[in-house]
Amino acid sequence: MKKLINDVRAVVPDMLDGLAALNPNLSLLQGGTIVVRADAEAVAARGEVALISGGGSGHEPAHGGYVGHGMLSAAVAGEVFTSPSTDAVLDAIRAVAGAAGVLLIVKNYTGDRFNFGLAAEIARAEGIPTEMVIVADDVALVASGDHAGRRGLAGTVLVHKIAGAAAAGGRPLAEVARIAREVAASLGTMGVALTPCTVPAAGKPGFELADGEIEWGLGIHGEPGVERGAMEPADAIVGKLLAKIVSDLSLQAGERVALLVNNLGGTPSSELSIVAGSALRNLAACGIKVERAWAGTFLSALEMAGVSLTLLCVDDERVAWLDAVAHTSAWPSLSGRVAQVSVRPAPVTPERASGAALAREAPLRRAIEAVCACLLTAEPILTEMDQRVGDGDLGISLSRGARAVLDELDSYPSSPGGILRGMSATLRRVVGGTSGPLYAVMLLRAAVALEHSGGSTAKEWAAAFGAGVDGLMELGGAQPGDRTMVDALKPAADALQSALARSERTGLALQAVVDAATEGTARTASMHPRRGRSSYVGDRALGHADPGAHAVALWLAAIRDALAD
Amino acid sequence: MKKLINDVRAVVPDMLDGLAALNPNLSLLQGGTIVVRADAEAVAARGEVALISGGGSGHEPAHGGYVGHGMLSAAVAGEVFTSPSTDAVLDAIRAVAGAAGVLLIVKNYTGDRFNFGLAAEIARAEGIPTEMVIVADDVALVASGDHAGRRGLAGTVLVHKIAGAAAAGGRPLAEVARIAREVAASLGTMGVALTPCTVPAAGKPGFELADGEIEWGLGIHGEPGVERGAMEPADAIVGKLLAKIVSDLSLQAGERVALLVNNLGGTPSSELSIVAGSALRNLAACGIKVERAWAGTFLSALEMAGVSLTLLCVDDERVAWLDAVAHTSAWPSLSGRVAQVSVRPAPVTPERASGAALAREAPLRRAIEAVCACLLTAEPILTEMDQRVGDGDLGISLSRGARAVLDELDSYPSSPGGILRGMSATLRRVVGGTSGPLYAVMLLRAAVALEHSGGSTAKEWAAAFGAGVDGLMELGGAQPGDRTMVDALKPAADALQSALARSERTGLALQAVVDAATEGTARTASMHPRRGRSSYVGDRALGHADPGAHAVALWLAAIRDALAD
Repeated sequence: MKKLINDVRAVVPDMLDGLAALNPNLSLLQGGTIVVRADAEAVAARGEVALISGGGSGHEPAHGGYVGHGMLSAAVAGEVFTSPSTDAVLDAIRAVAGAAGVLLIVKNYTGDRFNFGLAAEIARAEGIPTEMVIVADDVALVASGDHAGRRGLAGTVLVHKIAGAAAAGGRPLAEVARIAREVAASLGTMGVALTPCTVPAAGKPGFELADGEIEWGLGIHGEPGVERGAMEPADAIVGKLLAKIVSDLSLQAGERVALLVNNLGGTPSSELSIVAGSALRNLAACGIKVERAWAGTFLSALEMAGVSLTLLCVDDERVAWLDAVAHTSAWPSLSGRVAQVSVRPAPVTPERASGAALAREAPLRRAIEAVCACLLTAEPILTEMDQRVGDGDLGISLSRGARAVLDELDSYPSSPGGILRGMSATLRRVVGGTSGPLYAVMLLRAAVALEHSGGSTAKEWAAAFGAGVDGLMELGGAQPGDRTMVDALKPAADALQSALARSERTGLALQAVVDAATEGTARTASMHPRRGRSSYVGDRALGHADPGAHAVALWLAAIRDALAD
Repeated sequence: MKKLINDVRAVVPDMLDGLAALNPNLSLLQGGTIVVRADAEAVAARGEVALISGGGSGHEPAHGGYVGHGMLSAAVAGEVFTSPSTDAVLDAIRAVAGAAGVLLIVKNYTGDRFNFGLAAEIARAEGIPTEMVIVADDVALVASGDHAGRRGLAGTVLVHKIAGAAAAGGRPLAEVARIAREVAASLGTMGVALTPCTVPAAGKPGFELADGEIEWGLGIHGEPGVERGAMEPADAIVGKLLAKIVSDLSLQAGERVALLVNNLGGTPSSELSIVAGSALRNLAACGIKVERAWAGTFLSALEMAGVSLTLLCVDDERVAWLDAVAHTSAWPSLSGRVAQVSVRPAPVTPERASGAALAREAPLRRAIEAVCACLLTAEPILTEMDQRVGDGDLGISLSRGARAVLDELDSYPSSPGGILRGMSATLRRVVGGTSGPLYAVMLLRAAVALEHSGGSTAKEWAAAFGAGVDGLMELGGAQPGDRTMVDALKPAADALQSALARSERTGLALQAVVDAATEGTARTASMHPRRGRSSYVGDRALGHADPGAHAVALWLAAIRDALAD
């Protein structure tokens, strides 16, 4: 058993201590197993009915998470899955009762019914007006003839909420009790478990489930459910649960409900959202109007994976009570209002606009076509190099990019900046992995530089190349020496600017660029991989040049040759 | 793999559809994988900086749960544990950006950094002011020399919160970005996993953990952590996590922090509270002042059981931003203020006050002593009977009660009502199971009746007995015919009232009572158990009288004999 606890005997007080530590509106009573509103006396003094719930622990956030304005005045926690004692309930009643009296909200389990019931009897004998409502919202056991009857499940939280709002609104005890009983009579809940749960003191699960097996209509104490079945898609599971509840409540099209999608403990938020969406679609298809709906962990069974669904019939008055303010840690902050999901179209993409084609004989076109041809030719060698030190997809990624650029070249705007922007967008779309974004950012940064400078001189192109390499280094986070394409690119960009600063001719300058990239690539063979494709291969890469850097040296040479022609 | 999903390919859109359906303040964009504030345009129009976060899915409620006033303007969701595409990020930027620009909050993973970074570059090239902050709050990898560097973990949510408050407060982009970067630099997070998690599309866990084994410093994608170890108590685990974070942040006594206790997905609320309490005690012992603390599911790894702890260094300004209003589904409703837990004494128990002893020769005393003696004598036979049809503890429970009543009899107030109240309290305390509460409620209901009537006539005692039996039936829910003690008690109470109504002498009336109880007990042998001790034994109980009813007949006979003397 792996649980984040200190001592199986201290689970309940340790847990309530943590709960109260994070909520200054709570105090603890009697050995730390009763959570009370810190302002309970003031609430009683102003004549509000006090609400108390509780039961065995292991159902958190129930019920301590619902103590606060608008819901409970106190929650009495027993050991895990064990009713609290009569005296603990009695202490809670005495602590929070005022002249307006107390309503006990009790889930239908024998132990809870006896201990809360006896405490109520004693409290009444002491002169404290006390009423009790039993919640038995479980619809799974209807036909099974079980002797203990329907159990109290997550619907209990809606009784807390509505009775709490009525009490906070100043209604007298008899009326709050009547409202709570009517709510309890209009509730239906059913759950399905994907995994069992383990009581800390027991150390092993209450039942076992095979792979692919789920438990329908289970209780919240790890007790087995009414039936086992095979795992099904979420929509099918939701459909079966809702059908049972809808039939139990005799719900007709046009009727109004509140929906609670309850995490039994270990279900990820993502699955809960999927179930919630499915339940809303299902009820809409039945013509049942969902006035309010919430998904969350309301009343759990330790770490059990699974969900329960609860429907409560509502009218305007109940909706208003569900909407009333509650200051607790566990009642959700969302309003529960259900939205027709609006899916907006994505904004239009400005860069897809096409322009005049680049002239056949333009040097830029010759250079681009040469780079693409070179990368298509180099695919096998780049693949082989990358299989040795990386994941082997460099050759195919770059040839896919080259092919796409050749296909789309005539659709790019014909300005230098426009062409580089177009290439950037193409590569971003078709080249995956890390090479795609890195080439795309280099081209985009260079494009912006050319748009600012005009791109009519070699120095402006050199500046744009330098800006592009800087952008690539920023995005990738690699420096020279890290054994990446930067080891070819950065020396090449620097060499171009130095050569032009020395006023060398373009042909010589380009040769210097290719030389710098080639030397940089050669140096990578002795570098320890710190970033990039070989960082997962480690020192096994030593002795082999980086294929990303090699590709750079190849296409720079292709540019040199194209412009020299 | 058991997951509440419909199709592994539709997990992300289905989940976001459910999220948006339950939150009318959200809309979806682009195939349903981008969550945006429904009022994003109005927010942009009034000049607020828009915040965007996102990344791979599987970390719910991050990041869609943080979209709303005071936090994010949009969240971009990739496939489970996979970065969203550059174009998806770009669509989000274009959808929510106004003149004040956009801040991208990105967890430090290569894919996210590249795709958000490239989108930022493109957005800037389109003239949208765009900044990016990388969150790398993982302290586990510090010493391991891992090439990818520190990962972004749950601390990211605090960056959303603080930067979101600053943006909602009208700060310009450069300042919001600076604030976010400073927060990111003051964060430390470390986690521990008790179980792995399963990516839906993979169908099996990313790593395996043996019984009793836990994974320290894991990532949030199911990737293995830095070290494995044996399961330890919560305090020890919390101590190790905090020591690493405190050391990483170089925190000194007297410094101020915010604490986030994050559920990695499948941890029960109870354990989360235990961890939170432990973390608060640990930090208090270090002299570190916790200004704000929250426990919940902030940034998860699917259904992984485990927690991460995050500390953020705070000053007054950061605390104010943490306190600022946020309207999202996932930011907690609690203020985060930390309370010194107040444990109040339980209220005093009025019924323990002792009074004058009951006279030696009083008939009530003789009757009580006779009942107790009879139950002590009957222990073996009741045990034997109960072993046949129940759990076998009836004899020992009732003899324990009898012994305690004899011990405490002289401490009860000497009025008839006071004595029955005293006996009720004694039995409630010492007799467990269901017999204790049932006898206690019968005695208490009778005591209240005697206090009202005075208890000076046989008719008043008969009425009190009847009231007591009614109270017992209400609490237990059993009717005559259910095969419980009610099958002896109810005929006995009725017989007493009939006999007195016929003005029979007390001796004859008591004989009628005993006869009725004895006959009722005999009838139970042929009853199918519907409630009570034999309801789990079923028809195997047939042919045997109910031991609870038999005990009633025995002590009624003891009363008859004592009063006849």
